[in-house]
Amino acid sequence: MADKVRVALDAMGGDNAPGEIVKGAVLAVNEREELSVFLVGKEELIRKELEGQTYPKDRITIVNATEDISCDEPPVYAVRKKRDSSIVVAMNLVHTGQADAFVSAGSTGAVLVGAVIYIKRIRGVERTPLAPLIPTEKGVSLLIDCGANVDAKPSQLLQFARMGSIYMENVVGIKNPTVGLVNVGVEEEKGNALVKDTYPLMKEMKDINFVGSVEAREIPHGAADVIVCDAFVGNVILKLYEGLASTLVSKIKEGMMSTTRGKIGGALAKPALKKTLKQFDASEHGGAPMLGLNGLVVKSHGNSNAKEIKNSLIQCITFVSQDIEGKIREKLGASAGEGDEN
Amino acid sequence: MADKVRVALDAMGGDNAPGEIVKGAVLAVNEREELSVFLVGKEELIRKELEGQTYPKDRITIVNATEDISCDEPPVYAVRKKRDSSIVVAMNLVHTGQADAFVSAGSTGAVLVGAVIYIKRIRGVERTPLAPLIPTEKGVSLLIDCGANVDAKPSQLLQFARMGSIYMENVVGIKNPTVGLVNVGVEEEKGNALVKDTYPLMKEMKDINFVGSVEAREIPHGAADVIVCDAFVGNVILKLYEGLASTLVSKIKEGMMSTTRGKIGGALAKPALKKTLKQFDASEHGGAPMLGLNGLVVKSHGNSNAKEIKNSLIQCITFVSQDIEGKIREKLGASAGEGDEN
Repeated sequence: MADKVRVALDAMGGDNAPGEIVKGAVLAVNEREELSVFLVGKEELIRKELEGQTYPKDRITIVNATEDISCDEPPVYAVRKKRDSSIVVAMNLVHTGQADAFVSAGSTGAVLVGAVIYIKRIRGVERTPLAPLIPTEKGVSLLIDCGANVDAKPSQLLQFARMGSIYMENVVGIKNPTVGLVNVGVEEEKGNALVKDTYPLMKEMKDINFVGSVEAREIPHGAADVIVCDAFVGNVILKLYEGLASTLVSKIKEGMMSTTRGKIGGALAKPALKKTLKQFDASEHGGAPMLGLNGLVVKSHGNSNAKEIKNSLIQCITFVSQDIEGKIREKLGASAGEGDEN
Repeated sequence: MADKVRVALDAMGGDNAPGEIVKGAVLAVNEREELSVFLVGKEELIRKELEGQTYPKDRITIVNATEDISCDEPPVYAVRKKRDSSIVVAMNLVHTGQADAFVSAGSTGAVLVGAVIYIKRIRGVERTPLAPLIPTEKGVSLLIDCGANVDAKPSQLLQFARMGSIYMENVVGIKNPTVGLVNVGVEEEKGNALVKDTYPLMKEMKDINFVGSVEAREIPHGAADVIVCDAFVGNVILKLYEGLASTLVSKIKEGMMSTTRGKIGGALAKPALKKTLKQFDASEHGGAPMLGLNGLVVKSHGNSNAKEIKNSLIQCITFVSQDIEGKIREKLGASAGEGDEN
């Protein structure tokens, strides 16, 4: 069926594989009938997990892959060498057009590297950023890039701004999304060499809604819909979000438990508190798309459970139905023959 | 008296100047008799603030300075041009040996730039980092650098590691403090160009207790006593700390107020909650020292009140009595004639 969205799912990736991954696939195909899933990994293990589950048999297909890639392996070596790993086999399904998207909760490094090797960049796209949604006071912002491009160039940050805007507008549904550049001050002359070189160029871009520099302090307040930075800075922001939230929670608990009054209050306030903190957990906001590829890649958290895998699969439907790939190709793509693929 | 610690205090700097600044000086000299303070700024304003206050008259001296430097002015231009500003006059007191230290809650940019111009670097010190203490689960860590060195070199990060270790050991009192390098992963081959070049050199340093790369996620958990990074990354970390803490607090309040049960619980838990969050407020942990200068500079928060100014002044006593400047000179200083001063 042409209107179906076909996702290759890495059944072996993540802390809870294959059990939760397989369950997530079952949940997703039961919820959305336009979805079909290739469960890629060790056939006998997947088959065992599927036993007793109820789902439309024609929309889940097992694709055998015998090798494993662990998070500890050097990614470049692993994806080049282990051609029969679930990651490489699944990516090849996308490359050959048998699947529209690839979802994995496995090694981030292997996914980032493998995608460029096997799925390949859209011609004209310089680098393919990984762009998770992070929670803010106002909702969510797209943090682009948190991937492998730790030493980025201005032209790459400009492309991140464009791709991030397309994603936020068409997948998250924010009209004319604002774009901010992470900086150490709001003045144009502030910043390191990369940001100083990028700022004037970004300011000139007509097809994005650039609102200037954004200090890290303002990110949690929802300073911009698309937060642009190199992947080193993006990683620091993403991981500090995780670390600070968990530390604050434990400190708050500790503080409450130190007095009787606090203990009673804490017990009463617990459900509200829990809900709030859940809302502010970066891992609650679905998988991170990797943009600019010939096909979609979604990196789900390593500790993803069935629900998170289901959400990542459903995310692919919007991505494909909104033709994000086509829109990126249209805005950033080079005409045939131009650009590089690797 | 030789055993006195003499601090030049910018009476005009910060949101609450001169009132809270002058009060802070009064509190400090009343608390510590080895301290004397030069209140630098508009004489008539300072005199008015001192009226009715009780303090040992011989330990507070007003030094007139007629010009103002605001936070909006380009720092380099301001400190070069406004020679009669409180910042420049106070720094000259340190440069000429009349004061041991300079404390300001004024323009960070002007303080950073002015210190290098007027107080000057110790010969052999390449760059002078600003190093605030940030709260962690275990206590505090020194985040070095959060100053002006947004495009740092490996040799500079190595010096930051040394200076930070000296500070944590002698001022904060942590024996053999651990040093971590901010990175996107813990493996030696991870990182951007700067971190990759720095890591092997830092690993070879015999006079610091290097524990390897530290991911931003681990910083709030207290991963290392000294957290080394370039000032761009340091600023992102420091400001995200501030932004996330305040956002989480407002989210938690909102969450509690959404149910009756939460409201009651919140009211009961409020004191414990407040104490915890205060403990995790980066601004509660004193001023940030600027290290590697011929004299001490402490940057207090822009919104410092009298108590915070008092704490910054008292911090100078430990710095001077522990001879941090001499220890840095001994470890990093070049012999006379070597090194650069500007």
